[in-house]
Amino acid sequence: MRIDDINEIELKQVKINDGFWSARQKLITEVVIPYQESILEDKVPGVEKSHAFANFRIAAGLEEGEFYGMVFQDSDVAKWLEAVAYSLCIKPDEDLERRADEIIDIISKAQQPDGYLNTYFTMKAPEKRWTNLHECHELYCAGHMMEAAAAYYKATGKDTLLQVMERMSDHIENRFISEKREGIPGHQEIEIGLMKLYHATGKEKFLKLALHFIDERGKDPEYFIRENNNRGWKHEILDPYNTKYNQSFAPVREQKAAQGHSVRAVYMYTAMADLAKAAEDDGLWKACEAIWDNMVNKKMYITGGIGSSAEGEAFTVDYDLPNDSVYAETCASVGLIFFAKKMLDLNPSNQYADIMERALYNGVISGMQLDGKRFFYVNPLEVNPGISGELFGFKHVLPERPAWYQCACCPPNVARLLTSLGQYAWSEGRDTIYSHLSIGGRAEFRAARISVDSKSPWEGNVTYWIEPTQTGKEFTLSVRVPSYAKNAVFYLNGRKLEDQQDIRLGYYYFKRIWRSGDTLQLKYDMEVRRVHANTLVRENIGCVALLRGPIVYCFEERDNGKNLQELWTRKKDTIEAGDYEPEVLNGIVRLKMKGLRIFANDELYFEGEFRQQEVEMTAIPYYAWGNRGLNQMRVWMHEY
Amino acid sequence: MRIDDINEIELKQVKINDGFWSARQKLITEVVIPYQESILEDKVPGVEKSHAFANFRIAAGLEEGEFYGMVFQDSDVAKWLEAVAYSLCIKPDEDLERRADEIIDIISKAQQPDGYLNTYFTMKAPEKRWTNLHECHELYCAGHMMEAAAAYYKATGKDTLLQVMERMSDHIENRFISEKREGIPGHQEIEIGLMKLYHATGKEKFLKLALHFIDERGKDPEYFIRENNNRGWKHEILDPYNTKYNQSFAPVREQKAAQGHSVRAVYMYTAMADLAKAAEDDGLWKACEAIWDNMVNKKMYITGGIGSSAEGEAFTVDYDLPNDSVYAETCASVGLIFFAKKMLDLNPSNQYADIMERALYNGVISGMQLDGKRFFYVNPLEVNPGISGELFGFKHVLPERPAWYQCACCPPNVARLLTSLGQYAWSEGRDTIYSHLSIGGRAEFRAARISVDSKSPWEGNVTYWIEPTQTGKEFTLSVRVPSYAKNAVFYLNGRKLEDQQDIRLGYYYFKRIWRSGDTLQLKYDMEVRRVHANTLVRENIGCVALLRGPIVYCFEERDNGKNLQELWTRKKDTIEAGDYEPEVLNGIVRLKMKGLRIFANDELYFEGEFRQQEVEMTAIPYYAWGNRGLNQMRVWMHEY
Repeated sequence: MRIDDINEIELKQVKINDGFWSARQKLITEVVIPYQESILEDKVPGVEKSHAFANFRIAAGLEEGEFYGMVFQDSDVAKWLEAVAYSLCIKPDEDLERRADEIIDIISKAQQPDGYLNTYFTMKAPEKRWTNLHECHELYCAGHMMEAAAAYYKATGKDTLLQVMERMSDHIENRFISEKREGIPGHQEIEIGLMKLYHATGKEKFLKLALHFIDERGKDPEYFIRENNNRGWKHEILDPYNTKYNQSFAPVREQKAAQGHSVRAVYMYTAMADLAKAAEDDGLWKACEAIWDNMVNKKMYITGGIGSSAEGEAFTVDYDLPNDSVYAETCASVGLIFFAKKMLDLNPSNQYADIMERALYNGVISGMQLDGKRFFYVNPLEVNPGISGELFGFKHVLPERPAWYQCACCPPNVARLLTSLGQYAWSEGRDTIYSHLSIGGRAEFRAARISVDSKSPWEGNVTYWIEPTQTGKEFTLSVRVPSYAKNAVFYLNGRKLEDQQDIRLGYYYFKRIWRSGDTLQLKYDMEVRRVHANTLVRENIGCVALLRGPIVYCFEERDNGKNLQELWTRKKDTIEAGDYEPEVLNGIVRLKMKGLRIFANDELYFEGEFRQQEVEMTAIPYYAWGNRGLNQMRVWMHEY
Repeated sequence: MRIDDINEIELKQVKINDGFWSARQKLITEVVIPYQESILEDKVPGVEKSHAFANFRIAAGLEEGEFYGMVFQDSDVAKWLEAVAYSLCIKPDEDLERRADEIIDIISKAQQPDGYLNTYFTMKAPEKRWTNLHECHELYCAGHMMEAAAAYYKATGKDTLLQVMERMSDHIENRFISEKREGIPGHQEIEIGLMKLYHATGKEKFLKLALHFIDERGKDPEYFIRENNNRGWKHEILDPYNTKYNQSFAPVREQKAAQGHSVRAVYMYTAMADLAKAAEDDGLWKACEAIWDNMVNKKMYITGGIGSSAEGEAFTVDYDLPNDSVYAETCASVGLIFFAKKMLDLNPSNQYADIMERALYNGVISGMQLDGKRFFYVNPLEVNPGISGELFGFKHVLPERPAWYQCACCPPNVARLLTSLGQYAWSEGRDTIYSHLSIGGRAEFRAARISVDSKSPWEGNVTYWIEPTQTGKEFTLSVRVPSYAKNAVFYLNGRKLEDQQDIRLGYYYFKRIWRSGDTLQLKYDMEVRRVHANTLVRENIGCVALLRGPIVYCFEERDNGKNLQELWTRKKDTIEAGDYEPEVLNGIVRLKMKGLRIFANDELYFEGEFRQQEVEMTAIPYYAWGNRGLNQMRVWMHEY
């Protein structure tokens, strides 16, 4: 194993200015984060009470009252603060920063003298602290607050929350390492949080504590059973014998497949990959590679959705990917992106970047209404009004995005991902700058300042303007060419580069003494791709999915009439990608094709021929579905 | 409306001697009924305690103890007694009759002085009688015991149980008619029971009480809500607001579609059709016709399975017929046959007979293992090991038949249907004998004695030998020619009949002065039929089901290898029906055809071509699936 010194960049190094993403970042900063704040403050009528800010005020002794909400209610505040930190990097906002400072001040007052921080246990059951790691999310909430602390520190330079969480980390270290109390989190997240503290401060103790929880996990698969028996009380209805659910069934280094609750899983895999690099841990890296391979090659929807079952929001068995009774939680796809980026920093390769991009442009942003006001938790690939959201097996598959839930996990996850998008577009190694995603804007690296203009995802045309920070010094610009790019050509200062020698795993490495004003342009064709699924996926036999660039397309009743299952696309027919239409669904490229509607008369069962009719078919990007009222939708279409 | 005087015949008039059915009747009499008896008597180790006989003994004061079991445990005894009565018609058995007499004697002692009979309420809560019609099945249990009483009386001439149930009927009449207490059964069945008493005795009071419950139902859709509110206690978790579940959402004459719990529904429809005829009630008949049309043309599996959803074991919306998350309870298909036969007696037509035969040869007998020892409640059209019976949405779909359940509804229902099969094969009108199903054996009618030799379901060849009871008297023999019969030809005494004039709704009417020894032979071809589903059934697009005669075929992994979803049958290929193989699966005709296995390499998603391989494919009758160990099964196969 050779681990290159590739690092995540600081969010502040990047300024996104992109035809596709800027509007979405604006939605987050202008709609989602303020809306989320009003909810946390209980100022939105008609939405179930959050009480999350109030919990902290009461725990801080600033207000009278009782704890209210989920046992992990604190994490809603943490996720909001993290998104606020990122949004301040995108767009300074003194008022918002002041309000964030205030809540951080309250949080610091809610911290107990011994460093403990958790409003649920502090108010409801201080004597029960740390006795129900299985169900009660103390370490999970701490992890999210650590992420917020690191982000806020990096965004503002203010370290109040960082210090709070360092004290909490010390408290945890004391209990689980110094005092040698056994314990692992029932919902992984503390590992990511600790690694963020480590990256923000460079303090090894955070890394060691993260590694401790990773090392402990699954060492004794009966830990939660024992905890449950010793404790004699239960909070929820989790089954301590279900060790797959929380990935405690085996030591993590021995895990070879994506298992259990998908969000728990990808949060853990993210920390494992981060630790593999930071601690140069070959065993963790190998486990991550095996798990990644299983997850994306046997258990992932074409949209980047993962966790196919509503029961336990979980991975099931290989190739079990039903389109209509799907789960594919938005949060899980967000976590898949976290994991992918960590794998990329270990080994820049299209096997990670393609999937990261796939999830980003499809399974993640499908979670958000185009107006930023409503969110899917479940991201189906087939929706049938009257069945989806209504009947047994489909009740969880809502055919339209609902408003904020009480368990408000997905909207803040989308918010924190999209506000920190710059960190997913780039990495910087010792002497190499990596461009993973072609997103327009500016970025500042040690070696150079680079401006990008990109037509992604609608056209394969990206230009990089390079301004080296030092003249005469050689460095490498590594540009990913997505797997779907056809006839990719690079132009250096307008001159076509005939033979690029250094191509590794989809990344094109350009090593030279760059001069100020140099431009590197990448152009490629984006054909519409007819993609088939492995025949072990029972539901997709005889069907095709259409993709163009990173975008997965779908068909809606609105464009194609009722009974989409009657529509067939013919292999021989060409599919036209239309022009970019800025007025349609906030700006999309539609696909148009001829096809057949094959249908029956009234009989339920019959011998003889079907009727058929040539039709025009129109596909829209999957992420934009469900924005025009209740209607049928399908990704996988019949093909002949 | 013109209602012909067509009547159900007495079971004793028929003696079945048939290549297909005799062995199955023998299974019921020699395996199922004795096994059922041991269970009711708690003599089978390893099976959950029934206590059903014991409940009656305790209620009769013959034994000490407590009630045990479901609130409808009494009905298990009733269904067993009914099947015993039918089996005594098939095969006299003094010992069995003596044991039945004994339990009937105990039942009569368990009856309360006021005529009330129900061991649950008698022992557990006598003060709560009749206060929870919604959940507590008193009328349901009474209905089943009435069916048993009528059957036992007809089989043996003994009227002890008949008198018990007449007293119970009088008790019910007193409460609900004389005393004008409102109330309808939460689970319909009393209506059928009362009609059986009516047919057995000719006493109008039974018909009137049945009609009362039918008339009352749905008059006030809020009845169960009010009952629930007045009562202040609950037994189960039924929602009184779910008025579809028990078909109380509207007056039955206004119901136009099959709705709610499928067994409740078909039991009610059966009684409605019976009453339509007996009471010459045009409104009921019309409602039955509308409901029938909706049920069989929009909500029925090709196997005759009905009630597609596990939630509430219920009908859902039109064309919602998933193959793998199916419910299709065996009992519901049994009830469909009850309903079909009543509709046939109103109007002999293939629209009823074809469906009755379809359910009988497929969705009902698929419920029983070939050895008679295990039973499916749920009858899937697609089973995938590792998913079926295991994962969310599929847990109820067992891939192998389990042993007897605590809620032992299906096995006794199959038992009582198959032992009384003769009554479904024939009807007799004023001057017409109807042959609905070509089942071998002998039958005695007012006009003639008829012997039948039939090669059904494997060959289209039936011969009727007629011996008129009076010489020189004209009567009509009406023989159904199934819709699937091709090139049907009749031979009278060996001479081909060139033009049959009187054909109505699939029935061929032969009116003549029959002479002793006359033979009428029907021969027809049974091609393998490629049947398609309406394209509104999303799951079956691009798929075909193979049928031959009344038999629906399926494909099992055992014959075709793993991953049946990869197998395609080609429209152009001929399908060979093999010879009858007596050694295979207790005697079947297999279908053989060439086909293609279309499969993929390792990739989960890919562009480009599939791999393909010509293969031999073998189909077996659907009813015989699951008799060779755990394996994959499909009815609907991909076709191109």
